[in-house]
Amino acid sequence: MTWSLGELAVRFGCELRGDPSVRVDSVATLGGGPGSVGFVASTTYRTALRATNLGAVVLEPALADECPTAALVHRNPHATFARIASLLHPMPNLSPGIDATALVDSSAQVDATAQVGAFAIVGAGCVIGPRSFIGPYSMVGEGVVVGADTRLLTRVTLCSGTRIGARCILHPGSVVGSDGFGNARDGDGWVKIPQVGGVNVGDDVEIGANTTVDRGALGDTVIEEGVRLDNQIQVAHNVSIGAHTAIAACTGIAGSTRIGRRCMIGGGTGIGGQLTIGDDIIITGFGMVTRSIEKPGLYSSVIPVEEARLWRRIVGRIKRLDLWAARIRKLETAAGIGPAGQENDD
Amino acid sequence: MTWSLGELAVRFGCELRGDPSVRVDSVATLGGGPGSVGFVASTTYRTALRATNLGAVVLEPALADECPTAALVHRNPHATFARIASLLHPMPNLSPGIDATALVDSSAQVDATAQVGAFAIVGAGCVIGPRSFIGPYSMVGEGVVVGADTRLLTRVTLCSGTRIGARCILHPGSVVGSDGFGNARDGDGWVKIPQVGGVNVGDDVEIGANTTVDRGALGDTVIEEGVRLDNQIQVAHNVSIGAHTAIAACTGIAGSTRIGRRCMIGGGTGIGGQLTIGDDIIITGFGMVTRSIEKPGLYSSVIPVEEARLWRRIVGRIKRLDLWAARIRKLETAAGIGPAGQENDD
Amino acid sequence: MTWSLGELAVRFGCELRGDPSVRVDSVATLGGGPGSVGFVASTTYRTALRATNLGAVVLEPALADECPTAALVHRNPHATFARIASLLHPMPNLSPGIDATALVDSSAQVDATAQVGAFAIVGAGCVIGPRSFIGPYSMVGEGVVVGADTRLLTRVTLCSGTRIGARCILHPGSVVGSDGFGNARDGDGWVKIPQVGGVNVGDDVEIGANTTVDRGALGDTVIEEGVRLDNQIQVAHNVSIGAHTAIAACTGIAGSTRIGRRCMIGGGTGIGGQLTIGDDIIITGFGMVTRSIEKPGLYSSVIPVEEARLWRRIVGRIKRLDLWAARIRKLETAAGIGPAGQENDD
Repeated sequence: MTWSLGELAVRFGCELRGDPSVRVDSVATLGGGPGSVGFVASTTYRTALRATNLGAVVLEPALADECPTAALVHRNPHATFARIASLLHPMPNLSPGIDATALVDSSAQVDATAQVGAFAIVGAGCVIGPRSFIGPYSMVGEGVVVGADTRLLTRVTLCSGTRIGARCILHPGSVVGSDGFGNARDGDGWVKIPQVGGVNVGDDVEIGANTTVDRGALGDTVIEEGVRLDNQIQVAHNVSIGAHTAIAACTGIAGSTRIGRRCMIGGGTGIGGQLTIGDDIIITGFGMVTRSIEKPGLYSSVIPVEEARLWRRIVGRIKRLDLWAARIRKLETAAGIGPAGQENDD
Repeated sequence: MTWSLGELAVRFGCELRGDPSVRVDSVATLGGGPGSVGFVASTTYRTALRATNLGAVVLEPALADECPTAALVHRNPHATFARIASLLHPMPNLSPGIDATALVDSSAQVDATAQVGAFAIVGAGCVIGPRSFIGPYSMVGEGVVVGADTRLLTRVTLCSGTRIGARCILHPGSVVGSDGFGNARDGDGWVKIPQVGGVNVGDDVEIGANTTVDRGALGDTVIEEGVRLDNQIQVAHNVSIGAHTAIAACTGIAGSTRIGRRCMIGGGTGIGGQLTIGDDIIITGFGMVTRSIEKPGLYSSVIPVEEARLWRRIVGRIKRLDLWAARIRKLETAAGIGPAGQENDD
Repeated sequence: MTWSLGELAVRFGCELRGDPSVRVDSVATLGGGPGSVGFVASTTYRTALRATNLGAVVLEPALADECPTAALVHRNPHATFARIASLLHPMPNLSPGIDATALVDSSAQVDATAQVGAFAIVGAGCVIGPRSFIGPYSMVGEGVVVGADTRLLTRVTLCSGTRIGARCILHPGSVVGSDGFGNARDGDGWVKIPQVGGVNVGDDVEIGANTTVDRGALGDTVIEEGVRLDNQIQVAHNVSIGAHTAIAACTGIAGSTRIGRRCMIGGGTGIGGQLTIGDDIIITGFGMVTRSIEKPGLYSSVIPVEEARLWRRIVGRIKRLDLWAARIRKLETAAGIGPAGQENDD
């Protein structure tokens, strides 16, 4: 299906500089052709912009004069491009109904407009909302509620005790509601603590491939509306993630930690248990969070790689910093300097 | 099903302070109601304890006097609570037999009391023990042995060459027995080294969601009895994990490393290959282990996040520590101090 | 099936020292018996070599005199052993054809010599090459192309837009072609950016258990020939990995990063987005890469664990390094030393 630039401008509130009758059918990079729409989010791509053959480019006002083709001007070109892309590349249409190979319990309520795919399982008492998609090999455990327009792509597992909101997307291999890691020490061994809480996922949440979200031990694990979880993230029991927080891949969040709203957590980050991370906190990738953070801002603990021979020497220095403290103090004493007011605890 | 406090006290060896005829049916936090049992493991929750409306609280003797409701007093309240919770919230009952959609090889021996779920596959020569559960989409490869009372929840994969003990729980998406990462360099490329070992999992082991345990290259990968593996852990080929060791999520263990008994490994930890970690070693979360550790104790290498602007400056300092060493020595020489006996190698 | 040492020597270009008529049927460690072949790659195992009862040992010329049994001498014993192991332990034979429970779209082209396993799904327009294996629960999305002799073991998901070369192995739980993490900020929330690119996987690639490879946002994610990916790796959208690069488990690679050829990336490594890593770069395990690396060599940023009480003190020192810089400079000024030419920016 094609759209005219005029239609796109009206629909997404852009100022159009160019011929409104030009038609496009796809999105592409700046290297794409006249049937496609691209975007430029920063001046970094100015050179590529000037050489583009795209049908139109979504950009901010400051770049409009440099665009050699039609421009769809918007103050938020990134989000506008995302909306245009969603229009031109919609998710596949559903084929409402239940696949012949799917197993749906007779007590489950599957909306007539929903689709249950091949080899899917929908347990007793489940409620599957309108226009939702239970993809192949997906298992919806007993009593689970799935909201409207939510898509479980391939082999998603929702364990009993899970509620999923509307317009969510769960990617292949994700698991929501499996047991948290609860063990009580007894002598040399462990006694498993049954995990009897659930998982409550809000509207417009995306959960990435092979990501795991554990059920609560007693209360619920909570993922508020608009949260975006990338692939291979681990969310432990009783964690709470505030609305519109985005977390990149391979991050692990330990039990009972509360993360605020609109946070951005870089990939490979580790967040300890029973912490409170406030709203609008940004953690750069590979950060290690072991204490609560209240103040909005940007936090980091990454140490970038170094040539290995030098790095080994540096690690040796780090491991001896405690001895260095004494050496520096001794020097200060000999020089009649100090004690250093700013560092009174060494 | 409900239990009286008297029954619970007798069954779990608690001293009951309160009415033995009170009946409970569930566990809950201290905020729960009179039909539930909770627990307090430390004085941190003293205030909540004093306000509780629970039917009973499991606690240690020192806290008994502060409990406004019935108290189940035990020297190990955490483990006792776990046992009570298991009684009140048992795992779902099995429906012995083989689902009509499951594929079970005619040469497999499935105990009559075991359940094989929908779309499960049980290969040639497998032995599935009494009261075991092969969950939906679970594949039990050729010749695999699964002990009594073991549960493979949803889509667990046991590759050929795997043996699983009794009373184990394998969570959704876990993979046991896939190939280790064995490659021999040859010119610019790699030659795959067939992985012909197996995996031997002891009794009472729990393996978390999307955790992977590789088969041995030649010998076996070994997980001893009582080991607890959280979600998204990677156990490489020929690793051995000693009895009752617990490992939190997102930890990776490289090939041929031996971990002792009763260790506790925090989440996000990385353990290099061909190391030996002794018994009773505790590694805090996000630790990086690159050498063997013999001495029992607590080990760490985490660097917590810092405000990013400051952290960037600190990283700059770290990267120049090698230069600092020379500066400090020069100062010491000028001051007639040293050489520092404790640090003779810089 | 058994092979004589004479046959093995001829087939793999070894010099045989010993009886060519001795027959072997398996590979084993140096502790194995006379029906097996082992190998020694370094002098570290000299003692075990001298005591071996194996039928034959693959080794380099320098060790041949110390071998008490037949020796298959080759300048690359590791790769030669790998080839012998592949001969003695071949992958299971296929049973060409489509399992009765599999769902294959009528428009898919499945080669007559390929095998489609139980509960597998092959979508519209797919092309499955000769002697390929689509394992149980594997889903091959619409239009996906799978080359000859490629094996998707159990529950592999190939999303629409994926192309897989010849002789690849994809391990259980791996997901190729799911959406990249693309979100545009809009006010407090996020707008999903449709991911319309694909994934292009070359020949002879191995992808580990539960590893995820995202499709490109606009262009393709590319895995070149001979790449080896271990378990639980995350490859984000538009990443490119050069030929014969090997990456160990639990590594995460952020979006649009380009990794060169013949790199070796240790386990647990994190690589930031939009970077360029050149050819022949080696990153040790748990490395954090936040800048592009051009020069071939060995890079590291790991900090090994330390006894925790000492480590806490060291972290305190690290966090105060910025203050130390001032203290050292003050000492230098007092001593009439410096400014330090090598470090002019503190």
